[in-house]
Amino acid sequence: MKSVRIIGIDPGYAIAGWGVLDYTGNSFQAVDYGAILTKAGLPFEVRLEIIYRELSGILERYRPVSLGLEKLYFTKNKTTGIDVAQARGVILLCARQHGLSIGEYTPLQVKQAVTGYGKAEKNQVMQMTKMLLSLPALPKPDDTADALAMAICHAHTSGSLLARNPALTL
Amino acid sequence: MKSVRIIGIDPGYAIAGWGVLDYTGNSFQAVDYGAILTKAGLPFEVRLEIIYRELSGILERYRPVSLGLEKLYFTKNKTTGIDVAQARGVILLCARQHGLSIGEYTPLQVKQAVTGYGKAEKNQVMQMTKMLLSLPALPKPDDTADALAMAICHAHTSGSLLARNPALTL
Repeated sequence: MKSVRIIGIDPGYAIAGWGVLDYTGNSFQAVDYGAILTKAGLPFEVRLEIIYRELSGILERYRPVSLGLEKLYFTKNKTTGIDVAQARGVILLCARQHGLSIGEYTPLQVKQAVTGYGKAEKNQVMQMTKMLLSLPALPKPDDTADALAMAICHAHTSGSLLARNPALTL
Repeated sequence: MKSVRIIGIDPGYAIAGWGVLDYTGNSFQAVDYGAILTKAGLPFEVRLEIIYRELSGILERYRPVSLGLEKLYFTKNKTTGIDVAQARGVILLCARQHGLSIGEYTPLQVKQAVTGYGKAEKNQVMQMTKMLLSLPALPKPDDTADALAMAICHAHTSGSLLARNPALTL
């Protein structure tokens, strides 16, 4: 059975976590993970450019075929929400330009996929992510761990879809 | 006195109005204007890619040195607001990659700059835009007229700034 390489991203403009993994059936292997950081003092368009450039580099280096990305809902801080959405637009553009298919998931779907329980605590999701990927330690910052959990969710959900489309497999 | 070329954009994902103008002192000349349209049935990342590609073409054809863009506030429809913000992020990225400086304005600032009155009616703003730019008719859709009004506001506001930075003039 061929393995499929995907990337999960936790969108943000100050910190955008990312995690690349290969999966075969129900087995996952972390390839690499990290976070794109941009400094608070920079003009916002410069921060977007950094996100675009760094993400382009990651996609060209690891060549994932599909992206799992968190859906956005606005609740508390609307101004922060606008800026997260602007960064998320740049991430979607970059993924599209690199030919990735895209799946979007709510936090509840991610928790459900990783722990089997949609109301699981954040720490439980992180511990399961660490275990499923056989990581030596919990990735830091949390945004990176969230991105890996998103990748696991996307692998679970899109598995049957990718299996039906051999062109997407590596 | 040298003229300065700028672009105003009314951000959106279904319709993004744009208007390029040259100005010298208090005199404005419309260069070209229009709207980038994307179809509702397309995946959202494809719509973002179309906006990016078409805007890149406009910036390369007319080479404005600066962008005036509407500030976003979320009020009523949050879901639409998220998608407008995602498109706006792509517009900011594109402008930055083409070396444009960026100014952001509220609707009140635009009305004030074009009509002298921050609470002017929409139709009054459009009529003044048509008059200031000596247009034969009101541009359609409204998003295009809004983009030209934004460009006038940006020219007014950034005029003294651009005058102090000769590198920005054409």
